[in-house]
Amino acid sequence: MRVGIIGVTGYTGSELLRLLFSHRGVELTYVTSHSFTGKPLPEVHPHYLGILEPVCRPFSVGEAVEKTDLVFSALPHGESMEAVPLLREAGLKVIDLSADFRLADADLYLEWYKKEHSAPPYLGQAVYGLPELYREEIKKASLVANPGCYPTSVILALAPLAARGVVDWDTLVVDAKSGTSGAGRVPSQVLHFPECAENFRAYRVAEHQHTPEMEQELSKLAGRKVSFTFVPHLLPMIRGILSTIYTDLTVKMTEEEIRDIYREFYRGEKFVRLLPPPLLVETRNVYASNYCDLSIKWDSRKNRLIVLSALDNLVKGAAGQAVQNMNLMLGFKEEEGLEMVPLRP
Amino acid sequence: MRVGIIGVTGYTGSELLRLLFSHRGVELTYVTSHSFTGKPLPEVHPHYLGILEPVCRPFSVGEAVEKTDLVFSALPHGESMEAVPLLREAGLKVIDLSADFRLADADLYLEWYKKEHSAPPYLGQAVYGLPELYREEIKKASLVANPGCYPTSVILALAPLAARGVVDWDTLVVDAKSGTSGAGRVPSQVLHFPECAENFRAYRVAEHQHTPEMEQELSKLAGRKVSFTFVPHLLPMIRGILSTIYTDLTVKMTEEEIRDIYREFYRGEKFVRLLPPPLLVETRNVYASNYCDLSIKWDSRKNRLIVLSALDNLVKGAAGQAVQNMNLMLGFKEEEGLEMVPLRP
Amino acid sequence: MRVGIIGVTGYTGSELLRLLFSHRGVELTYVTSHSFTGKPLPEVHPHYLGILEPVCRPFSVGEAVEKTDLVFSALPHGESMEAVPLLREAGLKVIDLSADFRLADADLYLEWYKKEHSAPPYLGQAVYGLPELYREEIKKASLVANPGCYPTSVILALAPLAARGVVDWDTLVVDAKSGTSGAGRVPSQVLHFPECAENFRAYRVAEHQHTPEMEQELSKLAGRKVSFTFVPHLLPMIRGILSTIYTDLTVKMTEEEIRDIYREFYRGEKFVRLLPPPLLVETRNVYASNYCDLSIKWDSRKNRLIVLSALDNLVKGAAGQAVQNMNLMLGFKEEEGLEMVPLRP
Amino acid sequence: MRVGIIGVTGYTGSELLRLLFSHRGVELTYVTSHSFTGKPLPEVHPHYLGILEPVCRPFSVGEAVEKTDLVFSALPHGESMEAVPLLREAGLKVIDLSADFRLADADLYLEWYKKEHSAPPYLGQAVYGLPELYREEIKKASLVANPGCYPTSVILALAPLAARGVVDWDTLVVDAKSGTSGAGRVPSQVLHFPECAENFRAYRVAEHQHTPEMEQELSKLAGRKVSFTFVPHLLPMIRGILSTIYTDLTVKMTEEEIRDIYREFYRGEKFVRLLPPPLLVETRNVYASNYCDLSIKWDSRKNRLIVLSALDNLVKGAAGQAVQNMNLMLGFKEEEGLEMVPLRP
Repeated sequence: MRVGIIGVTGYTGSELLRLLFSHRGVELTYVTSHSFTGKPLPEVHPHYLGILEPVCRPFSVGEAVEKTDLVFSALPHGESMEAVPLLREAGLKVIDLSADFRLADADLYLEWYKKEHSAPPYLGQAVYGLPELYREEIKKASLVANPGCYPTSVILALAPLAARGVVDWDTLVVDAKSGTSGAGRVPSQVLHFPECAENFRAYRVAEHQHTPEMEQELSKLAGRKVSFTFVPHLLPMIRGILSTIYTDLTVKMTEEEIRDIYREFYRGEKFVRLLPPPLLVETRNVYASNYCDLSIKWDSRKNRLIVLSALDNLVKGAAGQAVQNMNLMLGFKEEEGLEMVPLRP
Repeated sequence: MRVGIIGVTGYTGSELLRLLFSHRGVELTYVTSHSFTGKPLPEVHPHYLGILEPVCRPFSVGEAVEKTDLVFSALPHGESMEAVPLLREAGLKVIDLSADFRLADADLYLEWYKKEHSAPPYLGQAVYGLPELYREEIKKASLVANPGCYPTSVILALAPLAARGVVDWDTLVVDAKSGTSGAGRVPSQVLHFPECAENFRAYRVAEHQHTPEMEQELSKLAGRKVSFTFVPHLLPMIRGILSTIYTDLTVKMTEEEIRDIYREFYRGEKFVRLLPPPLLVETRNVYASNYCDLSIKWDSRKNRLIVLSALDNLVKGAAGQAVQNMNLMLGFKEEEGLEMVPLRP
Repeated sequence: MRVGIIGVTGYTGSELLRLLFSHRGVELTYVTSHSFTGKPLPEVHPHYLGILEPVCRPFSVGEAVEKTDLVFSALPHGESMEAVPLLREAGLKVIDLSADFRLADADLYLEWYKKEHSAPPYLGQAVYGLPELYREEIKKASLVANPGCYPTSVILALAPLAARGVVDWDTLVVDAKSGTSGAGRVPSQVLHFPECAENFRAYRVAEHQHTPEMEQELSKLAGRKVSFTFVPHLLPMIRGILSTIYTDLTVKMTEEEIRDIYREFYRGEKFVRLLPPPLLVETRNVYASNYCDLSIKWDSRKNRLIVLSALDNLVKGAAGQAVQNMNLMLGFKEEEGLEMVPLRP
Repeated sequence: MRVGIIGVTGYTGSELLRLLFSHRGVELTYVTSHSFTGKPLPEVHPHYLGILEPVCRPFSVGEAVEKTDLVFSALPHGESMEAVPLLREAGLKVIDLSADFRLADADLYLEWYKKEHSAPPYLGQAVYGLPELYREEIKKASLVANPGCYPTSVILALAPLAARGVVDWDTLVVDAKSGTSGAGRVPSQVLHFPECAENFRAYRVAEHQHTPEMEQELSKLAGRKVSFTFVPHLLPMIRGILSTIYTDLTVKMTEEEIRDIYREFYRGEKFVRLLPPPLLVETRNVYASNYCDLSIKWDSRKNRLIVLSALDNLVKGAAGQAVQNMNLMLGFKEEEGLEMVPLRP
């Protein structure tokens, strides 16, 4: 099968390349870049020198249709909703890594992304690309909205309990911490090395645009509209998200009973690992891999559940999950190209 | 005035030296080290070469009494409770930077530190050395128990509301993140650079030994016994603690009303800074300084208060606060030796 | 083919596991650990949970012979020279990642490693495992001494010119900088995070034990005994070595002529990349990969050549090169298991 | 005395503020910023909140004259040569932290900075502000050109031997490594955290614009025109420069004789520390301080001298040295405001 990447110069584009390079079933036949049109890939990403040196093409629906069977859109939010409808109309399968097709509700998009959605009809068609929840739908999908990095971390951490209906949602708090690569490749004051190293901060406190995406998916699982507090923080490191989640439960359970619910829910799942105590999740244990690790801890002093979740924001939180979705859409083994050992140290 | 440091080889001992060196009212006349007895300070801390080169002495109550008016004990937990009573019996003023005299209740000490307290009578005499709460008591104290780094961060963040009685304690969660220097100078697997860099993890989830210390102090402020969930995390950086605190309130207030309570509570306080929005606390803004920065954010979607608190664990979280206490005990200006600009970048 | 790893708990052992896991021709049938005997691998290396969980065995020649066709010894220097002769006598092919069989001269070993060599007869049998220089010998070898990380970086940077006989050796200086993982997994004061982060230092200045290994190999290429100054430094990062090499040449050449010599020397080599100017080597461009990148720069003001070399100390500098050697010894395609894209960011 | 800072928003401007705040003899009466005109300092540098909150003024010679006795220019290269002549003509003492007045030769400026110098007459008047070399001239100077960070590190490392005439200059190589803050506060791709962390690279190999400045000063000391190879590298850390210098000597000396030359040359110098072996310089031992540490090592295998030099690029390499110069120019004790302990950990 032939695949393409629209917008290859950012970090998710580059990470897709890395993963697809090791995939035994697909051929990369088309990569585009607006700012590097006409230039070979290593001029943007020098580590590809001698490995993968396609020339960056301008975006063209015609060329995409001619050269590929499926395209990944790694364009920024706002741009993707312009390009994806064209690709879909031309009959191509699309996996969109931006936020543009994740929310079913165009009003929510406007509220959180401060921009009118330009292609609302597509919102209903897109399948939310979290294989652990929507495997069968993804297999049949033509347009997959690849989840955000924070949402993947949080939804996987809560899905088993949400589906059981035992979460006391109004008590739920998500304290999330992310490495810097999640913010992308464009330099900024906040991500300037001397500002960011040896520093730690929260940002968009209770206002992050990934909030409605998590709430949408967890509401579906819970069978009712749920909402909660979400606070992201910026870690002085490159890769990794760790979410610490606090919640009361509506029923009394032991830590072991809770762990059983997770075990059952994720039985057979290749990329979700429930850690046996006393092991606790660390971002380094999933580095550069497609795993999402989970730890369960019951705070018996306060009768409160603590769930810890760790993943690599560029892999399970972006490009790896996109490849997992592609595997489902194109009929490959789900873990093809994703069976690497996490990089440690 | 002449001061001494018992246990000068660790990070808090070294940081005390750094601060006292710039203090215009005291002379450092006695430093001890068990492992470096007889050696000049730069053999342990080479950055002191040519600056401060006292020879490390063995611990001796007699010498301490003869040479000093006040001593700081920077011994590890468990060792300090052996040494401090001897110093006190000899009539010396003592500021203890260990956890040994922070808890009023010897049973709590046993429960959380897994060790029988060897000097329970002194627990009642020690004043908890948080100047913003106990300024007058500290001035008259002979034994000050210098607060822990996490507790300083959390108590200062909650004191104004605790004192007002508006915190709904059973909903309260503290998610704290600390740099590595808080764990001390002794090498370990967890703090080995290749394990710790580019990594993030939680530890002692809902089981950290600083929990009862926070609860003790906040209970006093609240006027009733309170408890909550506390989860610490390890940041891949050297200095800095940031605590993110989530709680419901028992009365309805606007963000601005809450901020007023803080402003009033900390009026005239030199080392607590309430940040004006949209500024949010960052550990780098208090780096190597005695400040504790606070941000207040009301999550209006969930009617939940979020308080963010940042300090340098070795300064306001340890040695700086100890110097602040010393200033009060010896009649210096409270900010003497502590008026430095935070180091950024 | 069945392979084993003796001493799997260190960083090179763990990195071997990572690479062999993706190798399509070998099966890992035997791993040993002295300190973790009887325990499943994830107890030492938790990131292997659910991926690779062999039980660590005690070292036994009998078991090695029975279960494997080739073993990697990832034991520390000094221990390997005890174990390897036993494995060889039992007929096993061995790739030794320690320094114990790299020097042909037992006296040199004593001089630089401060330890009498316990198996001098094997020194002559071992092939120095740098495939770019000894490909044919490695194919036929039974014992391969896998090069050190610094030596690989320096020898590959100088081999083309050494073989041409144009290096003015007495002017040559190697200024090398390494990430911390090269120092291994055992905690120490120097590698304690708060000592090592935000810090940079030289160590073993002109006294590093890798010096004779480089000189031995470059002498062979030069056809005469050569020596030079080597100064290593410790970088506050996990992976990567960059060597900056300064030398006069004995003949007059342009930068482009020099580059031609390198191009010719490394023609067809998969893992050595000569960068086109103005691109300069960066450790990140070879991160977690088996590449060694080279840059050539002629300082026309001083008629001096500057060669820059970058590799990942755990891959091309250790485990990756070992797998490359194994491929040659067992008849696999040389790049099998090593065709990954460097990890960036 | 009243002092001002022209261009307060960059890192050197901010570091000057930090040091001047602790200086007991001067008052900061005037700070300017082009981009933050009219705004209080904490809007650029939030860590100054509640500490130092002057409003940023536009640059005006009249206001400078009226409000100050001496000004620091922390403008970028190219801008400073426009502003400084105006300040000088108005009779103000000026310390310029840019490169604009360091080179005596306007042609050299054009060659290395690729820009015509706009005020050549001032080049002759400026005193090179390295107090260890030009103390008496600085005391009488009206315009001081504050040295670059790399040049301070290299000149202090070589001055004793240069003055003795024992350096074999054509063999000399400087391999320098700098933290990222030296590159300033403006974000760029190279200093973007995910590009810069866990990465190491050389840049401007044998072409760095600080080269002629070092050569100019060392030529004066050597009494003849000297030149050498200089290669800078970028360290994944915030502060610190370490230079490793390799050279042959023209006379035979022991390591101890060389050390004696340094001891004698720097006798009485407060800010140059010659480390006793086996101690070796580390950037962390001078962090946030005005010290320059030196180590001497004789490579007896190759009869080559290795000098190691470490300083904090923002302090002894910029703002600290500027304050030292100010102290000399205004008649303060030379170390006033600079007697701090290096920050470690």
